[in-house]
Amino acid sequence: MISESLKQHKEQKSFGGKLGFYSHQSSACNSEMKFAVYQPPQALSQPVPVLYFLSGLTSTEENFMAKAGAQQFAAKYGLMLVAPDTSPRNTGIPGEDDDWDLGSGAGFYVDATAAPWNSHYRMYSYVVDELPNLIAENFPAIPEKQGIFGHSMGGHGALICALKNGSRYLSVSAFAPISAPMRCPWGQKAFANYLGSDQQLWRAWDASELVLEAQYNRPILIDCGTADSYLADGQLLPEVFAEACAKAGQPLTLRMQEGYDHSYYFIATFMEEHIRHHAAVLCG
Amino acid sequence: MISESLKQHKEQKSFGGKLGFYSHQSSACNSEMKFAVYQPPQALSQPVPVLYFLSGLTSTEENFMAKAGAQQFAAKYGLMLVAPDTSPRNTGIPGEDDDWDLGSGAGFYVDATAAPWNSHYRMYSYVVDELPNLIAENFPAIPEKQGIFGHSMGGHGALICALKNGSRYLSVSAFAPISAPMRCPWGQKAFANYLGSDQQLWRAWDASELVLEAQYNRPILIDCGTADSYLADGQLLPEVFAEACAKAGQPLTLRMQEGYDHSYYFIATFMEEHIRHHAAVLCG
Repeated sequence: MISESLKQHKEQKSFGGKLGFYSHQSSACNSEMKFAVYQPPQALSQPVPVLYFLSGLTSTEENFMAKAGAQQFAAKYGLMLVAPDTSPRNTGIPGEDDDWDLGSGAGFYVDATAAPWNSHYRMYSYVVDELPNLIAENFPAIPEKQGIFGHSMGGHGALICALKNGSRYLSVSAFAPISAPMRCPWGQKAFANYLGSDQQLWRAWDASELVLEAQYNRPILIDCGTADSYLADGQLLPEVFAEACAKAGQPLTLRMQEGYDHSYYFIATFMEEHIRHHAAVLCG
Repeated sequence: MISESLKQHKEQKSFGGKLGFYSHQSSACNSEMKFAVYQPPQALSQPVPVLYFLSGLTSTEENFMAKAGAQQFAAKYGLMLVAPDTSPRNTGIPGEDDDWDLGSGAGFYVDATAAPWNSHYRMYSYVVDELPNLIAENFPAIPEKQGIFGHSMGGHGALICALKNGSRYLSVSAFAPISAPMRCPWGQKAFANYLGSDQQLWRAWDASELVLEAQYNRPILIDCGTADSYLADGQLLPEVFAEACAKAGQPLTLRMQEGYDHSYYFIATFMEEHIRHHAAVLCG
């Protein structure tokens, strides 16, 4: 049932289910895109809900599957996990590999409108439209039962995808998200390059702005480590998002986790609770 | 309480405990050696049993901690995890980095007797004597409560360490171990280089030979995937070890796990059961 444009590169058994690595020609990004899918054992006999994970800067479709320890809980609750790469790659855009926080590995989950990035960097449309369609066509998914979470840049991505599409994402959570990208150096660099200099246009891609009018309503879960050096550097700004949620009446559980850093060791520690947050809605 | 010769390079919180990465000048290996230690939350208030993990070819002290998903169960049962690097590195031995299955990343957990390797490649003494002493001096360990496990080359290492020192390792298990190194290409290459051409001398480093006279008696647990390509290549030979155990009356649970390969996805799937195997003895 795998469509012809979809290439499977590897398949490995994991916690009774199947972990596969795929590539395909993406129309949203006008380039090859890669992603990983974990199908829990339950998917052998019936369609299952789908939980998307968006990774942080420099990651590929593999980091989450190798290090986050999520498969055991996806298997326990019967969730499919889908993790896309963090950007198009090898597009030929000049300088795409020059910076670790722009271009390759740093798509920021927006639809670029500024040249030269707008020819390929349309990760928002890829994640929200193209990839879910591809998943629905090729895997035993229940398309109307979707959740999304992510880490750092991918936490930002998860929040904006959910806030802009409340009816498509029934649950959302984030680990150490870039919570107010317009106000932090990473976000400002990415938005200036991908979206141009008019900061009014940036607001549509900033969770702390979007939440003011989103009326998402369902509870959002965020964990962030107090020893996260990017928190200290002002890149994450979860307090800005919390304030915006309070103003908008958006239910938020923001937990500052004592002594944890920005790494996958932090993510793995709280993975079960995040999966449970999603399963409570998606598998109910 | 960390001794002066021990350098801590990183410390990260994980499942309520502490994961640290260390280096020190090893007398056994006459070189710098690296290792990782996970201290579970229980170690903050009392000494805890120690479980050593020996990694496979090409691994460092980090792979196990990043990918095996062991910390959550070490935290649950109150076990310290110690994972050494798989060989000395940068020793200056000509050709040490030329092959992925000999020299750097491929110490094979023997004490080399043949030149030039015998000047540094003494991983057996390092793992069995020097490292446990270092751990006892610098961490809240109960030195008389030790277990050991490992993967592939490290599964071989765990088996020979336990079989040669039944009183020091109260529990042992292995994932896809090289079970009869004298009879497989990896083992033959390593032993010929590290131990010389007299195959009679190899028997002291081969689990399937050692078990015939070891009288270890306590139960050994081994998992091996049926889709493991190294099993098909005749590198692992668990059936040879099983036959030797049967002959010697050594209790063995060998589980051929349908569809699993040689990767950390396989290891992670059965990690909880292995930790439970050790905890039943060490934490009883």
